[in-house]
Amino acid sequence: LRWVAGLGIVAADPMATPNFYAGLVLDRMAERRRDDEFILGLLAVPTTCIVPVWRGFNLIGTDSEPRAVFVTAGQWRPGGEVTFLGMAGTTAYFATDLSSLDQREAEARLAGIGQFVDLRSVGPVIDRQSGALLAYARGLAHWHARHRFCGACGAPTVSRAAGHVRACANPACAIEHFPRTDPAVIMLVTHHDQCFLARNRRFPGGMHSTLAGFVEPGESLEDAVAREVREEAGIAVGDVTYRSSQPWPFPASIMLGFRAEATATAFALDADELESGAWFTRAELRAPRQADSFRLPRPDSIARRLIEDWVAEG
Amino acid sequence: LRWVAGLGIVAADPMATPNFYAGLVLDRMAERRRDDEFILGLLAVPTTCIVPVWRGFNLIGTDSEPRAVFVTAGQWRPGGEVTFLGMAGTTAYFATDLSSLDQREAEARLAGIGQFVDLRSVGPVIDRQSGALLAYARGLAHWHARHRFCGACGAPTVSRAAGHVRACANPACAIEHFPRTDPAVIMLVTHHDQCFLARNRRFPGGMHSTLAGFVEPGESLEDAVAREVREEAGIAVGDVTYRSSQPWPFPASIMLGFRAEATATAFALDADELESGAWFTRAELRAPRQADSFRLPRPDSIARRLIEDWVAEG
Repeated sequence: LRWVAGLGIVAADPMATPNFYAGLVLDRMAERRRDDEFILGLLAVPTTCIVPVWRGFNLIGTDSEPRAVFVTAGQWRPGGEVTFLGMAGTTAYFATDLSSLDQREAEARLAGIGQFVDLRSVGPVIDRQSGALLAYARGLAHWHARHRFCGACGAPTVSRAAGHVRACANPACAIEHFPRTDPAVIMLVTHHDQCFLARNRRFPGGMHSTLAGFVEPGESLEDAVAREVREEAGIAVGDVTYRSSQPWPFPASIMLGFRAEATATAFALDADELESGAWFTRAELRAPRQADSFRLPRPDSIARRLIEDWVAEG
Repeated sequence: LRWVAGLGIVAADPMATPNFYAGLVLDRMAERRRDDEFILGLLAVPTTCIVPVWRGFNLIGTDSEPRAVFVTAGQWRPGGEVTFLGMAGTTAYFATDLSSLDQREAEARLAGIGQFVDLRSVGPVIDRQSGALLAYARGLAHWHARHRFCGACGAPTVSRAAGHVRACANPACAIEHFPRTDPAVIMLVTHHDQCFLARNRRFPGGMHSTLAGFVEPGESLEDAVAREVREEAGIAVGDVTYRSSQPWPFPASIMLGFRAEATATAFALDADELESGAWFTRAELRAPRQADSFRLPRPDSIARRLIEDWVAEG
């Protein structure tokens, strides 16, 4: 690890440290998901942990430092659908979605245990493994909520394979739907000793970040990188190099991080998306700045990582 | 380019040549998709090309060598939903799905122009750009067919943004659904001068290939590579290195190609998935073999590419 002024501690080897929300050490036991007896047996174990999700929020204990808190199956036998997340050692983890409860009911249900908050509000400060587990639970809860009906025929779907499949209940259709994860490319555009950062119109005040966008059907990741950089900033890129990836279930993405070397520094912003953009040197990014006029992306984002890794190289 | 005995011509620089179905040179013009006047104007141009898809099959002209063939808007004004693919020079391309026609009707409609065939049956021999365009059309047609109803509320959806959005028609829901692409990792597991290939129970006779599997929510790509190799072959991997990617709309994947170095050669196959597996040297993969006892994966696959690139290095 290495200290970089203005950025804080950055990893010496960018590949060695997983990104936030990645690197979860959990045996997902995919091969047992359709074994109902095994799954029901785990739910009957009093120490089995339930990870509640409510309308996209995760349960966080706030008695001292923010931390992930769980309900045990001994305290509270889940009533609705549950999703088997996996086992850490001898402890099984299941997610359950309480979104059908109103806010008062949901808070009452978990009173004394924790509060429901947006994972991104605590992601950078809770321990990495907890953050990754909560992200996994949040992602699956969102998928279930968006796939209660079959897209092919409109009939209701039912949870199968311990929550990793939703099967169409219409016997004439009977399609199995699997969890959805949307691949998005995110890339630090560089030109020799400068990198390009921009402000999306939706960004919080002062924040500058890398370009990013969803991969479309019929594209490789590299195709998507080149298209997004051209569309958003009017920049042509040559070398496109993969760096690392990050689950980003806000609500359903995986971020695929690249570095892309521009062929020239001229740019033309897509004014519908971006309000400003500029080239920055490493020295400029290291210099202390007014937080209200220039901020880097959130510390748990792969955008931040892409920028920090590049700054640390020079 | 370089000739390798038993494999044929392989690329000298693996990053320089796009994989099959990737590298489509087409301006997708995403910023014009919601401009109805622009889109209708393109459909009124007689030279605009229509790319028909029928039940997952693409239209191929078979008068001489297999090649992509199109219908022009001058020949045939599309009746149903169309999806704007983009522009190549001054020619606009649209996809349309004829799956509601029965086989006789579909064949009659395109008589004298071409036949509907599985793109994979001709992908390796038609020109690369045509293959990529047909793959793009096929992927979007599949997505439309699977998203005719809203997964959140069950109401019908309608095509918007020139076919790149399906909007829920229920005003109380009104969610916009975007094209779905499922990220899958595919990895050549190596151990010094050997690589691991296996036979899935569903593979055609003699075919041996790399391991692969879908990325799950809450995983980075690297997490998914390590999990799949452990689940399928009982092998732990250390270094995991990204190589390249490939759109694979059969029906809805993007293949994310890696090389993964095993920590040891011992393995234990998941017998439900794999019927055999073994370590191979480069010399063994170069040696001519009986086609019925050992075959490499199809030439248009990234699996083949991962293997060929590795063989070419030694």
